[in-house]
Amino acid sequence: MARHTLSVLVNNHMGVLSRVSGLFSRRGFSIESIVSGTTEDRELARMTIVVECDDVEFEQIKHQLAKLMDVQAISECFEDNSVQRELALVKVDCPAKKRTEVLEIANIFRAHVIDVTSSTVIFEVTGDRGKITAMIKMLDEFGIKEVIRTGTVALDRGLGQLKKYNLEN
Amino acid sequence: MARHTLSVLVNNHMGVLSRVSGLFSRRGFSIESIVSGTTEDRELARMTIVVECDDVEFEQIKHQLAKLMDVQAISECFEDNSVQRELALVKVDCPAKKRTEVLEIANIFRAHVIDVTSSTVIFEVTGDRGKITAMIKMLDEFGIKEVIRTGTVALDRGLGQLKKYNLEN
Repeated sequence: MARHTLSVLVNNHMGVLSRVSGLFSRRGFSIESIVSGTTEDRELARMTIVVECDDVEFEQIKHQLAKLMDVQAISECFEDNSVQRELALVKVDCPAKKRTEVLEIANIFRAHVIDVTSSTVIFEVTGDRGKITAMIKMLDEFGIKEVIRTGTVALDRGLGQLKKYNLEN
Repeated sequence: MARHTLSVLVNNHMGVLSRVSGLFSRRGFSIESIVSGTTEDRELARMTIVVECDDVEFEQIKHQLAKLMDVQAISECFEDNSVQRELALVKVDCPAKKRTEVLEIANIFRAHVIDVTSSTVIFEVTGDRGKITAMIKMLDEFGIKEVIRTGTVALDRGLGQLKKYNLEN
């Protein structure tokens, strides 16, 4: 079992997200996250899909995706030649007497305060999956009220550019 | 026509994302973004859905969502009492002689450099939709190679907490 990250260019409409997520749910593939975002081209969306599976299953996933209508390009993002980030908003119980301690933890993770009340604070933090999980774990002892994580988005480092092309099915 | 942001708590599995996005594509609702992210509770995912529509259509959308299996709670996030953020990774053409100029623009938007080569740079930037669109527009004249945006995630400010409850259908 290994974690794989796929970058998939698709035609930009809702039906595609439904078909791709439907494919995964029907086949029982275990997806860690799937993010569909707009790109530099209005006609295209880019999905970043993170799966944890063995090599055989991974080949099946790529094969099934390539067969879907509206899928234009698929590439795997490897950790050493891509940047992978997610965004989380984290609302923490934070009465005044705990504030210094909570803010110190947030500083370590370079999180930013985007809302504060007399008893709560909301942080915005970006990073790879591991960093965000670590921060949430540290803040958990103060009482986490709400968390939302976007899931991972990825881009290849350097000059590369994922282009629309005909997939060999 | 107005922009509405919905925060929707759902059971955490792929089938839900497929059903929700399928609902929107079948009915022809025009969605700006839909993000499904993990939450503080492993059993639940939180979707943030941004739609641009009139009031009648918006009521229909809420009604249809409430009827879906696995939807646990729905609330609207208003701009003045919620925080709304998205994350973008932006790869820009950036030969050495343009670098100062490109970095200056990125600084204005508090973007961070997360990769650099002799001819490109990748920025990570978070903010509301308008800010990110403005930054991409500014960088466009240098040549944008790749962009990925997560779409908006939102949390209500202050003490509020969206809880699992029975919807009145």
